Amino acid sequence: MDEFGLIDHYFTRPSRRPEVVLGVGDDAALLALPGADRHLVVTTDTLIEGVHFALGAPGYDVGYKALAVNVSDLAAMGARPLAFLLNLSLPAIDRAWLAGFREGLFTLADAVALDLVGGDTVRGPLSVTITALGTVPPGGALRRSGARAGDRVYVSGFLGEAALGFFTRSGRLALPPELHAPVLARLDRPLPRIQEGQALAGIASAAIDISDGLVADLGHILKASGVGAEIDLRRLPLSSAYDAAFATVGYDPALVFGDDYELCFTVPPERVPALAGITPRFSCGFHYLGDIVAGHELVLRDGQDVYAPARSGYNHFDG
Amino acid sequence: MDEFGLIDHYFTRPSRRPEVVLGVGDDAALLALPGADRHLVVTTDTLIEGVHFALGAPGYDVGYKALAVNVSDLAAMGARPLAFLLNLSLPAIDRAWLAGFREGLFTLADAVALDLVGGDTVRGPLSVTITALGTVPPGGALRRSGARAGDRVYVSGFLGEAALGFFTRSGRLALPPELHAPVLARLDRPLPRIQEGQALAGIASAAIDISDGLVADLGHILKASGVGAEIDLRRLPLSSAYDAAFATVGYDPALVFGDDYELCFTVPPERVPALAGITPRFSCGFHYLGDIVAGHELVLRDGQDVYAPARSGYNHFDG
Repeated sequence: MDEFGLIDHYFTRPSRRPEVVLGVGDDAALLALPGADRHLVVTTDTLIEGVHFALGAPGYDVGYKALAVNVSDLAAMGARPLAFLLNLSLPAIDRAWLAGFREGLFTLADAVALDLVGGDTVRGPLSVTITALGTVPPGGALRRSGARAGDRVYVSGFLGEAALGFFTRSGRLALPPELHAPVLARLDRPLPRIQEGQALAGIASAAIDISDGLVADLGHILKASGVGAEIDLRRLPLSSAYDAAFATVGYDPALVFGDDYELCFTVPPERVPALAGITPRFSCGFHYLGDIVAGHELVLRDGQDVYAPARSGYNHFDG
Repeated sequence: MDEFGLIDHYFTRPSRRPEVVLGVGDDAALLALPGADRHLVVTTDTLIEGVHFALGAPGYDVGYKALAVNVSDLAAMGARPLAFLLNLSLPAIDRAWLAGFREGLFTLADAVALDLVGGDTVRGPLSVTITALGTVPPGGALRRSGARAGDRVYVSGFLGEAALGFFTRSGRLALPPELHAPVLARLDRPLPRIQEGQALAGIASAAIDISDGLVADLGHILKASGVGAEIDLRRLPLSSAYDAAFATVGYDPALVFGDDYELCFTVPPERVPALAGITPRFSCGFHYLGDIVAGHELVLRDGQDVYAPARSGYNHFDG
């Protein structure tokens, strides 16, 4: 059973409060406070040492990434960042590590104008939970459930970069040395697409951020929307670093590793010109991958062949 | 260095967003969303197995208490509960434990009308982080910083019950058997004073919930308000179970153990009649302990003698 099934099975109940516009099951919850000009967006993620980041990872990277994964969820909702809370469990107080953690955390917080407003520090195994708050115009949130047959599927930026960083660090991939720093940066310091997400409001019919891999996360859009998709793998946006590794790694790192923190989104055909209109503002680019279709299958095509990746995504409990 | 000092030192910065009414340092943060009729209250707490609850603790108790400590922070702000998020780190999936956890969690959530709207489930050492959201009328939040010399100091309910439960479970205290269940219930299933907190808005000048013990938590009010206090220990509200143990344990469990989740608050003399007006609505009672004075000391008096407890409160890093 994967983490989503776990949450669904044990903790999902119908919302009982009229303020809850969207509860468990999307990238973030949506709350409507009476009178407020904008809806509140709330998301939270936990990172555990040895599971989500390596034992001994530098404080800067952990602080940066713990916030980044949450900011990415705000981005996937089309939200404007507002504030965040930090829950930090530490086995001991290591001032140098904490100073680095703070710097990584606040570097990203400042970049996206997120205020730290609270939290909790406890003694325990190293882990970081961040809860991020943002706002969206009423009705303007990007949800997973809005994709319809005929919509086009897009992704921002390059896929698989974080995977290459992970394989490089673990010694399983021998990229040319000058490519190490770029792919490690994409693993350790992803760039949440917060401006892109806000610009996609009113254009995208559905959106998600890619934390578990394109296949798994596009799969969440398909399931929530009750549709299928056909993706042309030759359209996958792959960097020159990825091109250098392609003969070794193939498509899978771009499909199933995750940690990309790019946006995957769908656009109805009539809004494709609007997407073209905003595209020049963003250096990451928005890449057309294929189309939403009737049904519930995700079909990956490599030319005439149907392609099946080696595994369906990262899963904490499938181990 | 205690957890408060840690947060202060490493993570406190001036708020940069006009929406942030109150940031790090109170029981919860306060955010003003433009146009909203009420301010948003946000609080979060982490509970770690082996630190905040015993190894092998029943799921029901862990689920209940993890939510209760957060609801208690909402109560200390005078907030009306709205929604919460659950971050659960589990070493493995134990369905029976999870079913109990869910029942404890939702029993309290239903009692205080809190909707679960999101969260994250990960594999890792057992810990629970909950983030709770509530609302208060603008200007109506109870803060730590409003106590003034001449105000009276009150506490709700009985103090030290959870301590007696802890000492009973660990075999360090031999209470009569019929008293075991009541004190264990106060340890495992505290009753956050959510109705009381809302009723105290407009009456109390400052408030906090007692998680670290009366001495430590009243100390937070004194520090935030820039005042001192004189407390008459003979006024401490102690249950009949506590009376039975008093010869063995003395005052300290009621002063420094914590886990009471009662409210400690201050009331200006002119509002004491208003407090008397609401008191009959609450079976816990509000107990006058002493007075706020000029200075910055907390003086505990046992008759003519000044009393010093054995330690100043629970502290994760003084261990």
